[in-house]
Amino acid sequence: MKTDFTKLERAFNPRCVVVVGDKAESGYMWLHGQSEFKGKLYSVQVDPKEIDGIKALGVENFTSLLDVPEQVDLAIVAVPRPIAPRILEDCINKDVAAAHFFTSGFAETDTEEGIGLQRILTERASQANFHLIGPNCMGIYNPEMGIRQTMMQRTGFIGTIGFIAQSGTHAIAFSEEAYQQGLEVNKSVSFGNGIVLDSTDYLEYFGRDEGIKTIGMYLEGVRDGRRFLTTLREVAARKPVVIWKGGRTEEGGRAIASHTGSLSVPMAVWDAAVKQCGAVSVRSMEELVDALNAIQYLSPVYSNRVGITGGSGGQSVAIADVFAEAGLKVPALTQESYAELDTFFSLIGGGYRNPIDTGNVNRREMKRIMEILERDSNVDNLVLLTSVNPRMVGQIDQHIAMLSEIRGRSSKPVAVILASFGPENAETARDVAQKFRDGGIPTFTSLERGARALKKALDYHYLHST
Amino acid sequence: MKTDFTKLERAFNPRCVVVVGDKAESGYMWLHGQSEFKGKLYSVQVDPKEIDGIKALGVENFTSLLDVPEQVDLAIVAVPRPIAPRILEDCINKDVAAAHFFTSGFAETDTEEGIGLQRILTERASQANFHLIGPNCMGIYNPEMGIRQTMMQRTGFIGTIGFIAQSGTHAIAFSEEAYQQGLEVNKSVSFGNGIVLDSTDYLEYFGRDEGIKTIGMYLEGVRDGRRFLTTLREVAARKPVVIWKGGRTEEGGRAIASHTGSLSVPMAVWDAAVKQCGAVSVRSMEELVDALNAIQYLSPVYSNRVGITGGSGGQSVAIADVFAEAGLKVPALTQESYAELDTFFSLIGGGYRNPIDTGNVNRREMKRIMEILERDSNVDNLVLLTSVNPRMVGQIDQHIAMLSEIRGRSSKPVAVILASFGPENAETARDVAQKFRDGGIPTFTSLERGARALKKALDYHYLHST
Repeated sequence: MKTDFTKLERAFNPRCVVVVGDKAESGYMWLHGQSEFKGKLYSVQVDPKEIDGIKALGVENFTSLLDVPEQVDLAIVAVPRPIAPRILEDCINKDVAAAHFFTSGFAETDTEEGIGLQRILTERASQANFHLIGPNCMGIYNPEMGIRQTMMQRTGFIGTIGFIAQSGTHAIAFSEEAYQQGLEVNKSVSFGNGIVLDSTDYLEYFGRDEGIKTIGMYLEGVRDGRRFLTTLREVAARKPVVIWKGGRTEEGGRAIASHTGSLSVPMAVWDAAVKQCGAVSVRSMEELVDALNAIQYLSPVYSNRVGITGGSGGQSVAIADVFAEAGLKVPALTQESYAELDTFFSLIGGGYRNPIDTGNVNRREMKRIMEILERDSNVDNLVLLTSVNPRMVGQIDQHIAMLSEIRGRSSKPVAVILASFGPENAETARDVAQKFRDGGIPTFTSLERGARALKKALDYHYLHST
Repeated sequence: MKTDFTKLERAFNPRCVVVVGDKAESGYMWLHGQSEFKGKLYSVQVDPKEIDGIKALGVENFTSLLDVPEQVDLAIVAVPRPIAPRILEDCINKDVAAAHFFTSGFAETDTEEGIGLQRILTERASQANFHLIGPNCMGIYNPEMGIRQTMMQRTGFIGTIGFIAQSGTHAIAFSEEAYQQGLEVNKSVSFGNGIVLDSTDYLEYFGRDEGIKTIGMYLEGVRDGRRFLTTLREVAARKPVVIWKGGRTEEGGRAIASHTGSLSVPMAVWDAAVKQCGAVSVRSMEELVDALNAIQYLSPVYSNRVGITGGSGGQSVAIADVFAEAGLKVPALTQESYAELDTFFSLIGGGYRNPIDTGNVNRREMKRIMEILERDSNVDNLVLLTSVNPRMVGQIDQHIAMLSEIRGRSSKPVAVILASFGPENAETARDVAQKFRDGGIPTFTSLERGARALKKALDYHYLHST
């Protein structure tokens, strides 16, 4: 089919949304999900028992989509699967811009009925050039518009990240993990079986969307590999694309078959193809979020030598191990740096070889130490370790100011490892992460995550500089 | 020197503690640290300016350790390094059971003065057979007694884990990470330069302590390798020992030199030796805590096939990948299991190949599904995924009851992956982790951590069954 991006634009930024078939049994999940939608929300439901509950939510109900008295930008369809073809027909007749089919039970069940129904939907939508999202998916999240995949998602902000996922669970988990890391989603889509619109279409659309600065993807398989890679190459030339491919193992490949029915690809082939297109491969949700964070907010990372401060003597060994194991270097500093450190650094309770320990009185000299690392010609990247705990709160604002200043004048990437002490500080930690991010500094919640993210940013910039 | 375990017993369970040299500049960190100590706490300080501040804390001060009118079980020494030898002399004369020297600035600084002072301390303590903990360390944590390495540590419980660390930062981080995972420390010690008492002595002591069920260690090096391995073999035959060795890389080895001055060992040699002694090697703090959790609370893990439920279709691929990448299997179930699942499982919105998805209506059949996995002869270990979020709270108690029951009657290990949705649920997640633990079920905060921990438990039981 021919993708009409004005239709996708309407569906992702709708003014009028209709939920078809929401019901009490599921807690009216789709109507609740759109409770913060800024446009016009309608319901279509024929069951009188359900209609009262829908009216109680303050949503106007119709017994047919065709009765809705407005142009519809997005239909969210949650009907039983045998009814799906009829609702598709209504969507086509009503000239809805796009419909998200939450309804599942198609080819992924590997049953005759499911496969047959999927064929009917696919053929009818293709023939009518209808923009069907799914089925078997959670659809669209646009926090600015208040369109959600679940009522637990946050709204009321304009983010920078686009996320495309074959899995609804991962789409939802991504928005939460991004939020925890101080990042924000601009738009995301879970597209499930992708029978008409596929990952490639969403990638192309997000590539054109100027609000989206970086793109993350969770894929299980792609229908037309050649078309996907061509589009990936085009988009990745304009904005960073990070891809988590599920089914990296034999066990994962088997699980894919019963999830979205995609065929699996040998991983080595996949990774090489992705790299050749200028995109970055990751292996988990955390790596995905951290890589996007590092690539979007760090100054370009062109070399692997890291200067690190902020930890204690005890951490310095773990720091060095973790960065080395991620494929980075923690080099000795220049003689000039050591000579300068020697003039003020207290060796009692901490060393300064690199990492430079500041678990003791040297903490007061943090600014000076960071400036030494900034000037040191053996060091390409700057990393500060700090933590959110009741003792440290006063220092955080100083750290943000200091690092933002360096970020502004130096070409050296600056990252922060931001640990939080105790679950009681988890919310504060999240707010601090956002403050750093607002100052242009990405934060990572552990040494491992930070080191791996820095390496991914290095991989990305290496691909785009050669 | 000859270790006197009755002296260590007194130091780790003291009735009388004296802090020597605490001062306002450090916020009286050592006196504050012992503010919940159940025994008698005194201070020794000669500086009149400091004495007022100490009295204001309600602590009786003496100008000499020798003036303290009681038998002293533990001295915590925080004096400037040139005075350390004189305080050691006082400790010897006073016949203090053991002294923890927080004071640093010795061989780890690689300076003539530091090396010289360390030699003096070492020689005098060895000659007097004095039990010196440190120097350059955070000493003892005993939450039952209220003895702490920092005032941020929690008290008032009797845990099961002993932790021995060359680094104070790691000792403190360990107690917090263990708490977050629903585990509790019985005793821990940070021993820094370990000039008299070394890791081997603490290992032997914790091996004898019946309150300690499992032992974790963070090491940078050992002084007498043969003696360490002999003791490790003896202790590991009686209780699980999990070791995180710092300096796994060249960069880490260099960092060790300026931290505790230990010599590094080639990692392959180290890992092989540890394994031969029946202990388990890990590579990070998280792996350490998770491995202790898995080994202590899971039924013995003897085989690698895992049956998993609780996730959604979208997660099933990631679950399979993660367990496979950790070295485990996620096998197809028996025909009997599939036949039984077929009688009630709704294939719409989730598959049951293994993982068995319950992101949909099948969630109501969780108990039945777990029982099918319990009976399935292709499955050796049971894993349930659940999450702490506002929607799930009601299910958690049911899950705990259901799994505790299986834990009681089945020999199959049962683990829970307990994700938390949002930083606002972090504290609840921690409490839920403890509830599961009280029901005999260990929890892990991510798929990756759970899979790796299960593999470590398998490694451990494999070592001890062959």
